Amino acid sequence: VSELRLIEAIERSLAAEHPRVIRSIGDDAAVVRAGRYAVTSLDTMVEGVHFRSSQLTPGEIGHRAMAAALSDLAAMGACAGEAYLSLALPRGYAHEDALALVDAAGGLAAACGATIAGGDVVSAGELVVSVTVVGWAEDPSLLVGRDGARPGDLVAVTGALGGAAAGLALLDAETTPVNLGPDARAALHARYARPRPRLAAGAALARAGARAMIDVSDGIATDARHIARRSGAHLALELAALPLAAGLDAVAAWLGTEPARIAAGGGEDYELCVCVPASARESAEAAARTCALSLSWIGRVEAGPSRLTFSDAPGAELHGYEHSS
Amino acid sequence: VSELRLIEAIERSLAAEHPRVIRSIGDDAAVVRAGRYAVTSLDTMVEGVHFRSSQLTPGEIGHRAMAAALSDLAAMGACAGEAYLSLALPRGYAHEDALALVDAAGGLAAACGATIAGGDVVSAGELVVSVTVVGWAEDPSLLVGRDGARPGDLVAVTGALGGAAAGLALLDAETTPVNLGPDARAALHARYARPRPRLAAGAALARAGARAMIDVSDGIATDARHIARRSGAHLALELAALPLAAGLDAVAAWLGTEPARIAAGGGEDYELCVCVPASARESAEAAARTCALSLSWIGRVEAGPSRLTFSDAPGAELHGYEHSS
Repeated sequence: VSELRLIEAIERSLAAEHPRVIRSIGDDAAVVRAGRYAVTSLDTMVEGVHFRSSQLTPGEIGHRAMAAALSDLAAMGACAGEAYLSLALPRGYAHEDALALVDAAGGLAAACGATIAGGDVVSAGELVVSVTVVGWAEDPSLLVGRDGARPGDLVAVTGALGGAAAGLALLDAETTPVNLGPDARAALHARYARPRPRLAAGAALARAGARAMIDVSDGIATDARHIARRSGAHLALELAALPLAAGLDAVAAWLGTEPARIAAGGGEDYELCVCVPASARESAEAAARTCALSLSWIGRVEAGPSRLTFSDAPGAELHGYEHSS
Repeated sequence: VSELRLIEAIERSLAAEHPRVIRSIGDDAAVVRAGRYAVTSLDTMVEGVHFRSSQLTPGEIGHRAMAAALSDLAAMGACAGEAYLSLALPRGYAHEDALALVDAAGGLAAACGATIAGGDVVSAGELVVSVTVVGWAEDPSLLVGRDGARPGDLVAVTGALGGAAAGLALLDAETTPVNLGPDARAALHARYARPRPRLAAGAALARAGARAMIDVSDGIATDARHIARRSGAHLALELAALPLAAGLDAVAAWLGTEPARIAAGGGEDYELCVCVPASARESAEAAARTCALSLSWIGRVEAGPSRLTFSDAPGAELHGYEHSS
C-alpha cells in the first residue's frame, strides 16, 4: 500500500499540465510529443557511494540527482524536455522526505524547462535515485559530442572549479577550523549540494561553434581525458589556468594541498569543458557572457596520441586521477 | 578504473549499428531519430526485493528487468525503440556476470525490435537494475491507457496466468516434492525467469479497438483494479474464467491452495489485461491469434464506483491483494 500511496502523492505534486505531455504518471508509460531527435541520458546516485543522507537533505539529494542527469544534456548542447525518476527507498524512509526529494528534483527540472513525466518507486536496502532525462533537438548537427576536438582547437571551461569538492570536504570534516566566513561556506556547500546544470550555456556554446564538449562530473583531469580519448587527440592543459572557486584557497590551505589540484581533480562541479576552433574564440566568450558565466581558456588541442597533460605539472598525481583509464 | 573498463566492455558488446541511433554509449547522452510521439517507461528491480541472485542467473536478471520495462510499452500498444540501462553493482560483482546481464537484456531488446542506446554503471551495496524504455508512435489515438474502460466493455487477458508465481514458488522451495515433470518445471521457471513482453499482441489489440489495457505485473487482482480506478468503473471478473498456466494445478496442490487464486494474485506474468467494446470481441480474438496467443474473456466492465470484484469469489482474500490500494 505504502508505495502506491507515495506514487499517488507524487502524482498529485506533479499534476501540473504540460503542453508536450499527453499521458504521464499513472499510466503504464508516459506519452510525449517528440522533437525530431531525442537526446537521452541517465544518471544513478547511490547512498553511501554518491552521497550520504547524513550530509544532505532529501531535497538536496533530489536536486543533485536531477542536476547530474540534466548536465549531460547541457554537455550535448541539447535542451531539456522530460525527466523520469526512479526512487529505490529503504524501508521506513519517510513519505515527506520522499516527497521533498521529488519536489526538489521537479523544481530544478522546471527551472531548466523540463518536467517530470514518469517514474517508479520501489523498496530497497539503500536509497538509490536514478534519473533519465530526454531532450529534443531539431538539428543533430548542433549537438556536440566528445569526439570532435581537433588539433589547434582551444580548450575552455565555464564558471569555476573545485567548489563542489571543497563543499564536500567541509561536510566530511566534523569540525572545520577553516578560515572561511559563513557566506563563503554556504556558497561552497551549495556548489556541492545544489549544482546548476549549464543548459543555456551548453546550447549557446554549441551554436557558437563548439566541436567537443563534456560536463565536469568526475573532475576535469578525468573528463577532459574522455574528450582526448574519443577525439584521438592530445589535450594540453595548464593547471595554473584553471578557474578556482571562491573560498577554495582557504579549504586547500586547510587540507594542505594546492587549490589548483582540487580544481583539477574535484568532481561534481557540473561546469562545461569545451573545445572550439581558434576562430570561434570570441563567439564562445560571448555565448558564456549571455549566460552570465565566465569562460576560462585552459589549454589547447594538439596532434598526437590520445592523452591529457598539464604542461605546468608534468607527471603530477592529481586527486581524482585514479578514475581515469 | 573498474567501472570505466566495464562500460567499455559493454560498449563493445552493444556496438552494433542501428539506423535510428546517431550517438550512443560513450557520449554524454544518446542521440536518436525520434518518431512523432515518445512513449516512455522505466522499471527498477532490486536484489532481495524483486529477485534473488541465488535463484536467477545474471542473464535471467537482465532479461527480466528488460522484459518488465518493455511490457509497459506493450500495455500501451506501442512499439519498442530504445532502452537505457542503469546498473548499480555491489563491489566485487564479476565483470563477466555484469556482461552476461547486459547481453541478455540486449538480446531481449533486439528480439523486440529495440536496442540498448545508453546507460550507466555505478557501485552500490546491492544489485539494482533500472531500465528505461522508449517507444515511438505516429498516432497517439492508437495508444491505449488505463482510463478508457466503459460499462459494457468485455475484459480479456492474453496467455495464461500464475506461471511466474508458480515458478517462483518452486525456486523458493529448497526441495520440491511436487508432482511435476522436468519439462513442466522448466516451463514454469522460464515464465518467472524469462518472461516475454507481449509487444506484438499489445499493438494488435490496440488496432483491434482496445479501450484500456495494462500488463499483469502485480497480479491481475491488483492490475485490473488500476483500470477500474483510472476508468472510474467497476470491473466484474470471474475467478473461474482466469486462464491457468500449465503445471499450475500441481504447484497449487503442493502449496495447499487453488490454482485460480495463484492466477489472480500471482504477479510477473507480463500478460496483457484488455478491455474492449463488445463489438470488437472478434477482432480482439483475431489480433491475439495472429500473435499465436490465446485470449480469455474473464469479465465485464459495469457502471458504478471504481472497484474490482470476482463475482464467483465474493470477499475473497486473494494472494497479492495486499498490493492494491
